[in-house]
Amino acid sequence: MELKTKVHAEEGKQELIVTREFDLPLELLFRAYTEPEIVEEWMGTKVLKLENKKHGSWQFETTDPMGNKHGFSGAIHDFVPEARIVRTFEMENTGFGVQLEFLEFEKLTEDTSKLRMHILYKTLEERAQYLKIGMARGMGQAHNRLEKVAIKFKK
Amino acid sequence: MELKTKVHAEEGKQELIVTREFDLPLELLFRAYTEPEIVEEWMGTKVLKLENKKHGSWQFETTDPMGNKHGFSGAIHDFVPEARIVRTFEMENTGFGVQLEFLEFEKLTEDTSKLRMHILYKTLEERAQYLKIGMARGMGQAHNRLEKVAIKFKK
Repeated sequence: MELKTKVHAEEGKQELIVTREFDLPLELLFRAYTEPEIVEEWMGTKVLKLENKKHGSWQFETTDPMGNKHGFSGAIHDFVPEARIVRTFEMENTGFGVQLEFLEFEKLTEDTSKLRMHILYKTLEERAQYLKIGMARGMGQAHNRLEKVAIKFKK
Repeated sequence: MELKTKVHAEEGKQELIVTREFDLPLELLFRAYTEPEIVEEWMGTKVLKLENKKHGSWQFETTDPMGNKHGFSGAIHDFVPEARIVRTFEMENTGFGVQLEFLEFEKLTEDTSKLRMHILYKTLEERAQYLKIGMARGMGQAHNRLEKVAIKFKK
């Protein structure tokens, strides 16, 4: 099955461009990234902290089937509601590095919207590592869940 | 005069590697990046905010000869005393983008130390813009001031 989430990895560049169109109004897509209740459901993580503001920060935690906890966290550089989030991202204690993510949210129609992520990696090797662990497929599947879950939160 | 601060811009990569050895103990070099009083003197900026911690943030402001104020700010992803700072950096309202900076501080001898900055840019063009406005020379001169200024704060 073709994944609706496109991951573009240009040869030789330490970045990824991820794009995805959602059958969701912009408002719902943005809330899926910023309301802890929705984030927890589609990402399957516990939201320990999510300060949705410029110079805020965030911290998530997942528990694997063996009961081990895995942390994800970062700082928020910029936050513009329904338009843009610039944040750092790190999988803690994994040896993976820190990355910088630009998330851009765009309205397409009343019922559809688009996410564009521009992710910078410290090295080409780090980008390759992420692709190797199946990041593209994992993100596509997570976005599918997002789409299904978020619609339940329509006001 | 050769600049002691080396700026390495590898062809085709959206990053810069900046290295500089200082005739300063590691402790003083690190304080020059984290104590507002010292930062203000060598950078010539006003420190509005400098939260030296993981998930903190920072905000500086300079006033040019015409009296115009220029802001610089970012979020702090990671902070390890006398070893490492990972932070975002943006010159506000300039059209320049957000960058991610890895600062590594290293002791060489009792009286000398080294700073290595690895800076990621969103695009090759943004990196080119920074080089064009004389970033390499400007940083080298600023580091010369740092070296002169910081020694006065020796405890």
